[in-house]
Amino acid sequence: MKIAQAVGPADVEAGDVAEHNLTQFEYLALNSTLNIADGHARQGLTAGHARIIDDLPAMFRSAAAAPVEVLEERAYRTYFRMLGQHSHPAGGTRVLSCYSSSVAMEIFSRALATRADAVALIHPTFDNIPDLLSGCGLKLFPVEEDALHQGDLDENLLRSVGCVFITTPNNPTGRVLSEARLARLAEECREHDIVLALDTSFRGFDTRAHYDHYAVLEASGSRWCVIEDTGKLWPTLDLKVGWLVSGETVGLPIAKIYSDILLGVSPLVLEMVHRFAEDGIAGGLGELHRFIAGNRQLVRDRVAGLPGVHIADPDSRASVERLHLGHRTGLEVWSALRERNVFALPCTKFHWANPGEGEHSMRIALARSRAPLATAADAFRSVLAGV
Amino acid sequence: MKIAQAVGPADVEAGDVAEHNLTQFEYLALNSTLNIADGHARQGLTAGHARIIDDLPAMFRSAAAAPVEVLEERAYRTYFRMLGQHSHPAGGTRVLSCYSSSVAMEIFSRALATRADAVALIHPTFDNIPDLLSGCGLKLFPVEEDALHQGDLDENLLRSVGCVFITTPNNPTGRVLSEARLARLAEECREHDIVLALDTSFRGFDTRAHYDHYAVLEASGSRWCVIEDTGKLWPTLDLKVGWLVSGETVGLPIAKIYSDILLGVSPLVLEMVHRFAEDGIAGGLGELHRFIAGNRQLVRDRVAGLPGVHIADPDSRASVERLHLGHRTGLEVWSALRERNVFALPCTKFHWANPGEGEHSMRIALARSRAPLATAADAFRSVLAGV
Repeated sequence: MKIAQAVGPADVEAGDVAEHNLTQFEYLALNSTLNIADGHARQGLTAGHARIIDDLPAMFRSAAAAPVEVLEERAYRTYFRMLGQHSHPAGGTRVLSCYSSSVAMEIFSRALATRADAVALIHPTFDNIPDLLSGCGLKLFPVEEDALHQGDLDENLLRSVGCVFITTPNNPTGRVLSEARLARLAEECREHDIVLALDTSFRGFDTRAHYDHYAVLEASGSRWCVIEDTGKLWPTLDLKVGWLVSGETVGLPIAKIYSDILLGVSPLVLEMVHRFAEDGIAGGLGELHRFIAGNRQLVRDRVAGLPGVHIADPDSRASVERLHLGHRTGLEVWSALRERNVFALPCTKFHWANPGEGEHSMRIALARSRAPLATAADAFRSVLAGV
Repeated sequence: MKIAQAVGPADVEAGDVAEHNLTQFEYLALNSTLNIADGHARQGLTAGHARIIDDLPAMFRSAAAAPVEVLEERAYRTYFRMLGQHSHPAGGTRVLSCYSSSVAMEIFSRALATRADAVALIHPTFDNIPDLLSGCGLKLFPVEEDALHQGDLDENLLRSVGCVFITTPNNPTGRVLSEARLARLAEECREHDIVLALDTSFRGFDTRAHYDHYAVLEASGSRWCVIEDTGKLWPTLDLKVGWLVSGETVGLPIAKIYSDILLGVSPLVLEMVHRFAEDGIAGGLGELHRFIAGNRQLVRDRVAGLPGVHIADPDSRASVERLHLGHRTGLEVWSALRERNVFALPCTKFHWANPGEGEHSMRIALARSRAPLATAADAFRSVLAGV
């Protein structure tokens, strides 16, 4: 068990599990074969993926011989093309390759904190986003999803922050910001001369998020920044890139803080991203969408008919599924599942501004091989039937 | 050229190269085959390394099937054993695997800044250390190397800081903190109830840094933290781990901030570190030491007899070599080298508290294949002869 490693005696007493952040819950799952907690890609390799893995020794040697600039640009060009992001910037410091989207987020947060005091942040969302922002000294104001999708943001809110930060597709809800709403939001941010920042880590799973965001952002004249993530899609054992992409006029010392933290990511990882994205363009992405849809249906079938239980986000295509548990709390279901060595994620902490809202829901990861997911879902069903 | 990517129009004007931080200088070198700027390991694979790289597909599949806790503990146990660090802690949150030593440094800095206002920091040292600490709001006081090695630190200094931070072996000087000095320094820190932090990233190159630091630290009763780095030793294309290791009583929210930034490093990277460290124990480390010593001798032979030029750190065994350039400035030699597509590192910014001290020196990376290093050293000689 990695409990000690996760939360350590000095940090969290045994009884304080309710105080864990989401990642600390995810640590507890790491060594279980029935880990449906974290949103990392843990499914098996497809035939196309296996061919790339078999080619790793040759890829290592060719990456060692190539200029890293060439590998880097090829990786992000292929990745962005796969996702319809044709108007992405290139060169300069406009696309910075980070070890992960969270490292990109840390760099962005530190850069933003040098010029702003407060952020309007989507609510709910994965809790390391508010924690990284507030850890860098930024004050947070929630932007409720419904309000975000329905129309303009509050003028007073926009006047009191230096940035609007939106996760789209959102985690855990899967809701996607439409092209029209993105355009209007960028306009609002430009009017108030504040930064519009997007975390699009789950974009790969949902073609509704494949409209050309960069065309919209560039046309808006706003100060913008986007965090892209290759890490949710493919079972690359967490070899991934988080790209920190910014508009020319973003006005934050992003490149300087980037240079304090890294010289660059591994050329081998860049080469892997390029090859996996090529495979995605050649049909792998559609195959992945069908695979996730199948896993989603499996989970929905397993929990169908349980009294009080319902699917929180029927329209979601993200690689996570959120369930409302009726009268049951996420924490009690988590504990019962854990006794069966199954680990899912209680949703309280997603609701960073109002944890009570998440008390009766859980998130299940779908980027898993079919057999262990079915076993975990069976356990879920019998636990829910018994609680 | 990666100039634009490195420093970008928005960040640094063309004429401001003297204002670059060290990493920004390193970006400029990245796409040159005559890059002797950064301290990353860029030499060719040994026969032992090549066998590991050939085994990557099998390693990928076995790492995918193993509990990550097992891979992680095996990786750091083998690595620490190779370097004589037998009393390292294990389990819990005592050894946290990060993407790199700089990510470990960022996490440490953020954690320290929640409990301290100021740091006593070794001078000179690589500039991302002062930049990360001060970027997190910490005030810095220099600890000169000579003072550090000669005896007790100033009482007033120790009373005014929350941490003493030492790079050992130091970058760029290669100076190693002796066991006796470490023991006394830990005692001084304990007496003042402040954190003693070590960055040992270059430890692997120097057996004088292979005494059991953890035995000394644990015995001292001090609040301590060590950043270890696998990234300087082996040509793994920057697939590496930075370990953030801490004493039980360090009293900083390191594990919480770690959990905001990452769930863990890649199991494949952990497996690579284990295998490369096994190879190191089986003779690879001695082979590496002989290789670096040979490269050092090559550089020393090339610059021998040039008027005004001398070896700054004759006793160093680190994979970098610092040259005093006499009347020449590092920046003018850098410019002349750059015209020949050779990139070394001007030393000004290592002297973070007094840049003028570094104006007449440069750092040359030695972890390079023999042939390009010889070509670069030849260029160095003719540039120095002509300036």
